[in-house]
Amino acid sequence: MTLDAVLSRIDTDLDAATERLLDLLRIQSISTDPDFKADCGRAADWLVDDLRSLGATAEKRPTPGHPMVVGHIGEGSPHLLFYGHYDVQPVDPLDLWDRDPFDPQVEDTPNGKVIRGRGASDDKGQLMTFVEACRAWIAENGSLPCKITFFFEGEEESGSPSLIPFMKDNADELKTDIALICDTGLFGDETPAIVTMLRGLLGEELTITGPSKDLHSGMYGGVSMNPIRVLSKIIAGLHDSTGRVTVPGFYDGVPELSDEIRAQWQGLGFDHGAFLGEVGLSAPAGEQDRTPLEMIWSRPTCEVNGISGGYTGKGFKTVLPSKASAKISFRLVGQQDPHAIRESFRSYVEAQLPEDCSVEWHGHGASQASQMEIDHPAFEAARKALSDEWPQPAAYVGCGGSIPIAGHFKSILDTDAMLIGFGKDDDQIHSPNEKYDLSSFHRGIRSWARILDALS
Amino acid sequence: MTLDAVLSRIDTDLDAATERLLDLLRIQSISTDPDFKADCGRAADWLVDDLRSLGATAEKRPTPGHPMVVGHIGEGSPHLLFYGHYDVQPVDPLDLWDRDPFDPQVEDTPNGKVIRGRGASDDKGQLMTFVEACRAWIAENGSLPCKITFFFEGEEESGSPSLIPFMKDNADELKTDIALICDTGLFGDETPAIVTMLRGLLGEELTITGPSKDLHSGMYGGVSMNPIRVLSKIIAGLHDSTGRVTVPGFYDGVPELSDEIRAQWQGLGFDHGAFLGEVGLSAPAGEQDRTPLEMIWSRPTCEVNGISGGYTGKGFKTVLPSKASAKISFRLVGQQDPHAIRESFRSYVEAQLPEDCSVEWHGHGASQASQMEIDHPAFEAARKALSDEWPQPAAYVGCGGSIPIAGHFKSILDTDAMLIGFGKDDDQIHSPNEKYDLSSFHRGIRSWARILDALS
Repeated sequence: MTLDAVLSRIDTDLDAATERLLDLLRIQSISTDPDFKADCGRAADWLVDDLRSLGATAEKRPTPGHPMVVGHIGEGSPHLLFYGHYDVQPVDPLDLWDRDPFDPQVEDTPNGKVIRGRGASDDKGQLMTFVEACRAWIAENGSLPCKITFFFEGEEESGSPSLIPFMKDNADELKTDIALICDTGLFGDETPAIVTMLRGLLGEELTITGPSKDLHSGMYGGVSMNPIRVLSKIIAGLHDSTGRVTVPGFYDGVPELSDEIRAQWQGLGFDHGAFLGEVGLSAPAGEQDRTPLEMIWSRPTCEVNGISGGYTGKGFKTVLPSKASAKISFRLVGQQDPHAIRESFRSYVEAQLPEDCSVEWHGHGASQASQMEIDHPAFEAARKALSDEWPQPAAYVGCGGSIPIAGHFKSILDTDAMLIGFGKDDDQIHSPNEKYDLSSFHRGIRSWARILDALS
Repeated sequence: MTLDAVLSRIDTDLDAATERLLDLLRIQSISTDPDFKADCGRAADWLVDDLRSLGATAEKRPTPGHPMVVGHIGEGSPHLLFYGHYDVQPVDPLDLWDRDPFDPQVEDTPNGKVIRGRGASDDKGQLMTFVEACRAWIAENGSLPCKITFFFEGEEESGSPSLIPFMKDNADELKTDIALICDTGLFGDETPAIVTMLRGLLGEELTITGPSKDLHSGMYGGVSMNPIRVLSKIIAGLHDSTGRVTVPGFYDGVPELSDEIRAQWQGLGFDHGAFLGEVGLSAPAGEQDRTPLEMIWSRPTCEVNGISGGYTGKGFKTVLPSKASAKISFRLVGQQDPHAIRESFRSYVEAQLPEDCSVEWHGHGASQASQMEIDHPAFEAARKALSDEWPQPAAYVGCGGSIPIAGHFKSILDTDAMLIGFGKDDDQIHSPNEKYDLSSFHRGIRSWARILDALS
């Protein structure tokens, strides 16, 4: 049987597949930092070469930012698109890494082998699960069972500024029967998941200016407006005492969970205590009338991702700074409108500025939440294929992160998207010591082979 | 007449004196940053060599931190001590400097010639005014009119950790009839000042930890305590709506101004609008029932000198950080007890910490405010000497900055201290583009020659 032979080849080829992934992980493709622009280009080149080695036609396509990689291979129906991103998050704080983030390695841990390095899980390791499944399929059968388009982005970690124009400009080429996206996680160690709800994301950066230059706090302290104090007061007021966000109109378009979904989620047996305990916490700090799972999957948030002002080096400096800055992001759900919230947030902050203070804005990505159409027959076929591979049946779940491309496939290409991934909660994505379980990588490749088989 | 000849020599020698100062300014003696430890040592060596060139016995004296420089010269009464500091503030933000802070130069400006570079005013330029006055006096007369002890510190900008032990260990050597300290400013462009009130300083650094590691805000945002939000809320609460500091017991020991001093200060004709306008402000932001001059000279303050947390680099990173830090300083007046305030502040912050948050403390300097004994006859003699040099008579003033050594001379050595300096409000000390007017340097040297004459 074709599938069994493919699965067997995947098992045999795992070491070689892992080496290929390590090779890709060595490329420092940090998309948010312009210093790593050339590295992003090199990661795209690596993927073009790898797709071509499969027999695909593949190209690096320029954008105003980092390039896209697009490749095509195979014949027949259905026509599937596979999406992943080759860019990674910055690595700081570097001193919390146990190894060079770009010198990846397979490590033995008490929980089994892991591939350690920046991007191992998010998203290079996940991206390669599908590529390796195709490689094994081709090696065993000479060709793929259907037509496949590969679509790899290099700006996912920096707000995807080129994505929508690129999808619009290349809509004919990218429109397929269904899109497969591998940038999410397992529900549990033995339970795979298909994500059906994704939060949107709005990023804002503000810099508040008080005095026109840095001052000596002995001379001006107490007299001059201190922009750190102004910024702190604004941040302190962003949530009320019950944990709700205070930006006017913020909750417009936030739906309540249906009883059906609430019941389904309760049935998943999510361990809230373990989820918090894993990161040293004992109690949820968000909206007091929601469970952590609801907060993550179905509630909007406002978080401060970074703050800086004044002297932050070693020792002490009695400066009264001219400027203070913060990076603030909102996770959005349902029909919340990122553009309306951006406008409301800016007005809200500006109304709080005291005399002699001004604010400069730098807007980052803005994407709406999305909800998948699980009536599409591919969903149930994929769920069954996943359930065949893993010890526990696959679940339909929500996702707290923001993968705006799922919504773009629908709105720009009218293509339904299916989000399947093999990351784990302890993968430390966006954090020091990111890893991807070797079992996630191995079973992930096998899962895609089963899904290819099921959808063809 | 001796004094006239000395003043004339000072005028003739100004270019050479300026070159000597530029040489000292080239040494990167940033005391708060351990990376510049060797530079601090080099600045001390430079001063030892310079004092020896005057005929003084001078030595670099080791401390657990940066070295002290102590020198002796001359005979007779009175025995004067001169104090200055050779260390400087850090230079960041470096991109706001118009030139390399350690490549100093004399620049022509619309307001006359200035010496531009880190430390030009605070305190290398001021320190050298006295040294150059001695040089001119010796060159003209062969010797000084009285016995002089030089005492230069290298840790003034980093809380003076070695100062008190050193003064105690060397009390016999450092005890003199009066101490002269040159680290303050003019009252106005044409009005010299003797400072009679100095604020104390308490520095605190705190780091708040929430989750045990940096998290992905998509996965934990809204659920996990965010330490930036916790820190912002604490900072936002440090002042009430009238501008008063909310730390319990903070105002214990804060005296009200006497009617006499209030009247004297009002008579100084301080231009509040110009003081604020100089730094781009239109209104005082402090206690609403105080004038800016009162706020600076006679009221305690609490300021945030630095804040950091999360991702602060280019671009955006949706991290939910594990830690957030701030550097906070208090300026103290009257009998406020820095140790009691430190304790109260820490308790106050700790009481506000939500579940799952902890705080680590790093205490910086703690010094009480001090008040000079202007009944000492040297004060009136110096005031008259200054008034002879400058277009306007010298004033007795307060000072918002903290120069704890003045109090230490009294408490450890039972020596009265007299604070006379020639800095200007627009010198940008502790800020980018620090400068010292060439006229401050020139008239400062001449002022000390007159004071040496008046006190001998």
